[in-house]
Amino acid sequence: MRLLIFHGSLAYKVTEPVQISVRDEPETEEWQEFTNVLIAFCCVEASDEGRLSTIAEKATEELKLVAERVKVQQVVLYPYAHLFPRKLATPRFAVRMLQVLNETLRKAGFTVHQSPFGWYKAFRLECLGHPLSESGRTIDAEPTGQLK
Amino acid sequence: MRLLIFHGSLAYKVTEPVQISVRDEPETEEWQEFTNVLIAFCCVEASDEGRLSTIAEKATEELKLVAERVKVQQVVLYPYAHLFPRKLATPRFAVRMLQVLNETLRKAGFTVHQSPFGWYKAFRLECLGHPLSESGRTIDAEPTGQLK
Repeated sequence: MRLLIFHGSLAYKVTEPVQISVRDEPETEEWQEFTNVLIAFCCVEASDEGRLSTIAEKATEELKLVAERVKVQQVVLYPYAHLFPRKLATPRFAVRMLQVLNETLRKAGFTVHQSPFGWYKAFRLECLGHPLSESGRTIDAEPTGQLK
Repeated sequence: MRLLIFHGSLAYKVTEPVQISVRDEPETEEWQEFTNVLIAFCCVEASDEGRLSTIAEKATEELKLVAERVKVQQVVLYPYAHLFPRKLATPRFAVRMLQVLNETLRKAGFTVHQSPFGWYKAFRLECLGHPLSESGRTIDAEPTGQLK
């Protein structure tokens, strides 16, 4: 999994569906806005398959490290295929992975918003510009035999 | 080289210098704004070293393909280390690479703005949300024996 993490604000709205086998149903077609949050652009990779909870836990740890330093409690998960994946996961797995990451973040005490998978979206991203306001993370895990 | 390309608008301002051996001198400390442009987040990699003009030409070709389809003539080059590089280039080479890419884009008919290398920057990025409004490109080249 690859994460591109920003501290700042995000507004987005869905524009049109991506031609893909699985997609989330958007809650709304209006702009959604979030201020003073961590925005996590998230790219699920084939290597995450079979390592669902380990990857979710490691990603949560990484986000927690940043969140504590910049003092925010809300995360916006934003599915994003363009983070130079070694190999993309299947859409079906990516949707499941993002759901589990969402749940794992909530259990860690975060408020979480998840933008819909499988849609083109317009967005306005504001990055605050301090040294911790942008970072890239590659999350890897050894196979653990955990349930897909 | 890795490029993350957006069609939309960008505003940015430098905030503080990165602790690094080489950096550009910013033209201004005020916000700089660009509307209806291609924004190219650009990560220079070690594998680009010794392949300066080939990489610049290939990157220009990729940007041209997008620019023609979305009908824009201005490119904002935005140095960006967080594109999951296989290995980052040295700062000295990265600065040179970006200069050459800037020149190559100008020769191809683009108006180019280059944001300063080696500075933390606050930014506001607007991505229009149509299918061509965001894409990632990895630019590779075989060694050509060209000057560094």
